[in-house]
Amino acid sequence: MHSYPSPVRVGVAGATGYAGQELVALLARHPQVDVKLAMSSSAESAARPMPRLARVFNGQLEPLNVDRLGQSVDVAFLAVPEQAAAELGAALVKSGVRVIDLSGAFRIKDDAQRLRWYPATKSLPPGSAYGLVEHYREEVKNAELVACPGCYPTAALLSLLPLAHAGLLDTSAGVIVDAKSGISGAGRAPSERTHFSENHGSVSAYGVFGHRHVAEMEQELGADVTFVPHLVPLDRGILETIYVKVAPGTTADAISSAFETAYKDEPFIRLTGDALPEIKHVAWTNFCDIGWRLEPGTRRLVIVSCLDNLVKGAAGQALQNFNVACGFDERTALL
Amino acid sequence: MHSYPSPVRVGVAGATGYAGQELVALLARHPQVDVKLAMSSSAESAARPMPRLARVFNGQLEPLNVDRLGQSVDVAFLAVPEQAAAELGAALVKSGVRVIDLSGAFRIKDDAQRLRWYPATKSLPPGSAYGLVEHYREEVKNAELVACPGCYPTAALLSLLPLAHAGLLDTSAGVIVDAKSGISGAGRAPSERTHFSENHGSVSAYGVFGHRHVAEMEQELGADVTFVPHLVPLDRGILETIYVKVAPGTTADAISSAFETAYKDEPFIRLTGDALPEIKHVAWTNFCDIGWRLEPGTRRLVIVSCLDNLVKGAAGQALQNFNVACGFDERTALL
Amino acid sequence: MHSYPSPVRVGVAGATGYAGQELVALLARHPQVDVKLAMSSSAESAARPMPRLARVFNGQLEPLNVDRLGQSVDVAFLAVPEQAAAELGAALVKSGVRVIDLSGAFRIKDDAQRLRWYPATKSLPPGSAYGLVEHYREEVKNAELVACPGCYPTAALLSLLPLAHAGLLDTSAGVIVDAKSGISGAGRAPSERTHFSENHGSVSAYGVFGHRHVAEMEQELGADVTFVPHLVPLDRGILETIYVKVAPGTTADAISSAFETAYKDEPFIRLTGDALPEIKHVAWTNFCDIGWRLEPGTRRLVIVSCLDNLVKGAAGQALQNFNVACGFDERTALL
Amino acid sequence: MHSYPSPVRVGVAGATGYAGQELVALLARHPQVDVKLAMSSSAESAARPMPRLARVFNGQLEPLNVDRLGQSVDVAFLAVPEQAAAELGAALVKSGVRVIDLSGAFRIKDDAQRLRWYPATKSLPPGSAYGLVEHYREEVKNAELVACPGCYPTAALLSLLPLAHAGLLDTSAGVIVDAKSGISGAGRAPSERTHFSENHGSVSAYGVFGHRHVAEMEQELGADVTFVPHLVPLDRGILETIYVKVAPGTTADAISSAFETAYKDEPFIRLTGDALPEIKHVAWTNFCDIGWRLEPGTRRLVIVSCLDNLVKGAAGQALQNFNVACGFDERTALL
Repeated sequence: MHSYPSPVRVGVAGATGYAGQELVALLARHPQVDVKLAMSSSAESAARPMPRLARVFNGQLEPLNVDRLGQSVDVAFLAVPEQAAAELGAALVKSGVRVIDLSGAFRIKDDAQRLRWYPATKSLPPGSAYGLVEHYREEVKNAELVACPGCYPTAALLSLLPLAHAGLLDTSAGVIVDAKSGISGAGRAPSERTHFSENHGSVSAYGVFGHRHVAEMEQELGADVTFVPHLVPLDRGILETIYVKVAPGTTADAISSAFETAYKDEPFIRLTGDALPEIKHVAWTNFCDIGWRLEPGTRRLVIVSCLDNLVKGAAGQALQNFNVACGFDERTALL
Repeated sequence: MHSYPSPVRVGVAGATGYAGQELVALLARHPQVDVKLAMSSSAESAARPMPRLARVFNGQLEPLNVDRLGQSVDVAFLAVPEQAAAELGAALVKSGVRVIDLSGAFRIKDDAQRLRWYPATKSLPPGSAYGLVEHYREEVKNAELVACPGCYPTAALLSLLPLAHAGLLDTSAGVIVDAKSGISGAGRAPSERTHFSENHGSVSAYGVFGHRHVAEMEQELGADVTFVPHLVPLDRGILETIYVKVAPGTTADAISSAFETAYKDEPFIRLTGDALPEIKHVAWTNFCDIGWRLEPGTRRLVIVSCLDNLVKGAAGQALQNFNVACGFDERTALL
Repeated sequence: MHSYPSPVRVGVAGATGYAGQELVALLARHPQVDVKLAMSSSAESAARPMPRLARVFNGQLEPLNVDRLGQSVDVAFLAVPEQAAAELGAALVKSGVRVIDLSGAFRIKDDAQRLRWYPATKSLPPGSAYGLVEHYREEVKNAELVACPGCYPTAALLSLLPLAHAGLLDTSAGVIVDAKSGISGAGRAPSERTHFSENHGSVSAYGVFGHRHVAEMEQELGADVTFVPHLVPLDRGILETIYVKVAPGTTADAISSAFETAYKDEPFIRLTGDALPEIKHVAWTNFCDIGWRLEPGTRRLVIVSCLDNLVKGAAGQALQNFNVACGFDERTALL
Repeated sequence: MHSYPSPVRVGVAGATGYAGQELVALLARHPQVDVKLAMSSSAESAARPMPRLARVFNGQLEPLNVDRLGQSVDVAFLAVPEQAAAELGAALVKSGVRVIDLSGAFRIKDDAQRLRWYPATKSLPPGSAYGLVEHYREEVKNAELVACPGCYPTAALLSLLPLAHAGLLDTSAGVIVDAKSGISGAGRAPSERTHFSENHGSVSAYGVFGHRHVAEMEQELGADVTFVPHLVPLDRGILETIYVKVAPGTTADAISSAFETAYKDEPFIRLTGDALPEIKHVAWTNFCDIGWRLEPGTRRLVIVSCLDNLVKGAAGQALQNFNVACGFDERTALL
């Protein structure tokens, strides 16, 4: 693990997007952090005020500048599109800056898969970790670059990995992940898809069979995933309903026990058992809440998992990774 | 088919609930209908004004009275809870009044299943039809009592029956119906579950494995259905995402063709193909929009189906049944 | 009044915006109308499907063409931005086509005021009427061009004119109109202002002191108006809270009486008295609901007025004007 | 000022309502606080889990018990209805427990006014302060009981007091406060008024001329206030649009200067000048954002003020008062 003088000097590339603003707000509460640089990829954005951050973050926004980042900070958070992240991440690691990347650029280990979904990323820098802290904490401690998981895979993998590791799943018929997401997940750029009137009073499926988060789920699970994300009319939050078969003979107790074993000491996982979780209780928090029901007589297990896509699905998880990577209490600025 | 003097004299039992008000508003637009009686099951409700219906429905609300209904109308719509509907429906059919029932009381044909989910209904009156018009139009024409399908089964069965009938489905592994519903589906009674603040910005699953609409889906499909309904923060509308395996060798063309054959002349079914439907386009209409995608290489078919739970899922479908039963143009007052 | 062969041939310029689509949907239900032409100002829009209108409007969208409009229709509806409307309206009137304009281009009679707010409109064509039907019905009957009132002025003027005409107001200290509007009022073009995440869970004031609808209110009232519109997180609907002093000695009875006298036979005005109206009851209708309270001891009157900005505030009011102008029952296709 | 051993032992009466849960969540983050007791007025509520607070607050809920409160804590927060607060507050002050009351029971100083609006409160205990910290900080420091201002008066008074104190207002014609509030302000009890479907897509005025918060505004301003609150379809947040005349000769600079002087060092007031504030930026924070515009030529000033009704309008302001009363940094657990 690296050790830093306190406070750790950090920079944020992409501070004006929804995840970026969330991150700056969280970092501003962190007692061992000094936000040296907050950069926006467009000069225009950098010049506009961010009313939400007034009195919260007192620094100055500036246009993105990789050299300044490379020279001035110990750790850089990247909240930019994956093409930009692919370049920035590689350059910063070379400069000796530790990188916490919120984009998808460095998540996929298999070259062919990565080429398909994230062609801008030629290779993973040595010392890369997949930042699903609850399952890769040791790797994160020593990583030079942490690829934070996508919002959808975070909810799905936190739900499925304990059962898969315990040998309780029968994934031969595949896994179905039906996700309901708030609109902030679609980003800050205005489009017909993000127009208020197109979403208010509506629900829509999108990206069926073509969403790149599938690659990430399949990489970690080693099973086929049918993934259908939907936009629902709320701002922040994801709820996933996951349909999977359990192995013959699997009891409800075995499932509960696998979850308890995996997560009983995890600060950000709350198991709700058969009282299924709701987005309302995780919004604006770094929690992932997980509940489940085993259908009598069918081996069909339904898991419901939810989190705030901007916190546990993005900025909060990034900060959790940062805390682990720097040796701080994992909960700092997150509770 | 019955024939009536024009206008047909109709009565509505349960005119103050959400579905009841919707029904009265639709009936008021129907040129061949005279709404003789609008009744509320509680005297208190009957005494309160309904601001939405001012200048739309000029009649007087009155407390529920089965004798007055039996004597004054040709057709009675029942928009009351199923226990009340079970009694009212049987009595009215005996009085020679035709019944269009919006509750679940008369939907289930198998006695054991009905006893489990709707114990108040001892038997189905002779001349009962299951009012999924697009598939039971002939039965409806001659029925004494029409049991209108539930909102969830309507969307699911309209999506699955054409493929099942064409032999394109492999339901051996069951069918999964993941439904997202607006809150009006939970009815007008205030409760923690219908409180604004519990639903705004949230999504919640409910009734997992225990929703009685499953019985209705399984009755019509003859296959196991895993059904998980969710409340999403909107008022009216249901979107269902349905996961099912197709039979070996089934092509995308075969699926399209089965849908087209079944629905090309149906006034209220709109096929959207691989442009998946959204609630926004069906809200306040009697349409059910259906789209689908066949996952390459997996035989997994995803169907997305949506409708307005108060119209096609309740009052509109009831009126469509009424139009069929009375020999009117099926679209009257519905387009 | 003009007389037309039946059905009247109509055209819609701007059929793909929110008001335009609403208008096409309403016209499609009108038994004496044949929608000959539905045009979009951009060729790109004209080429895209409109899922909401499938099976409702069976015609073909085409790019805007003033010559085709001039030659093929009896009446043209303009639902385009005011600059385009200014040109189109003048040209069509010259071709002998009657025009129902939904934009602001032809609303302001005073040349100086119009030059300030709608500089593209050089002059009002002879035979222009301000289409607030409830107060200018006779002018509309004979008009060559009807300028439909803005959504905000419609709610405000319907509330204030009966009292002003009855001499019950003291407007020396001005009138305050605090408006809450759904986002569809901001139009279909994506922008930061119309992004879902910027409006969900939020309220914002905009256009303070600079909104051109003020000119329209002041023209009709002859008094200073302080107008502050706000965006609230809903799709369709406007609620205005109006603060005005009444003349000394004015009683609550006098106010009720003035409203009753003005509106007792109006099909689309519903007076709610001291039970204040709510957007929910007017959404998707052509009603304007008006309620009021006189503050004891202060001469302060608070009027609350609401309507659906896409119906009574746009397409519905346009159709109401059309019905009046063509001699049809004013309620046709609107109830 | 009192001094306490660290951590201060606090109790919360009414921990299960919306404001109570918010308060427990904030207190749980406070490093100098030990939440000894969290009580619910109903035994039933005390027995139910609060999913939002899992892993946040690890204590046990218990039924309300004034004796236990009186014996076990240094400071008690009351988040119960005013009738209960009136009794509890008086009893606890007598037991030597300091009280931070979130209800209206102790806000009104004039006996006649208090008798009208809060008849359960016979008298104000000696040492009571009105906890609008920004204007009564010194009183709060030494108070035995702090009456936290209502959510609506907080936004209104923070906006108006600096101008009133600077002599810039002409309130002879009264002040108009048009408020838009999220539904959580109506409390957690289910009712038709708080039903999701009654509020989604709607706006409604309520309590016109009869809301008891008027008394509080008039007490502090010494001027007549016309107050119209509205429910808007969001969960948390209030935006107030305030219409008031300025004194003759008042310039925009004088207004800015009065605001700056009053608030330049206040940690929770953000002045936005003529960029008007939006609820989105204050939700989930303890900020009150204030912007304004002076209408040219009319002496009409429009002020827009917003805050989160559960934080700055309730739990956050209560904690801010606690911090001041205990001598902690005012921002602790609030930034």
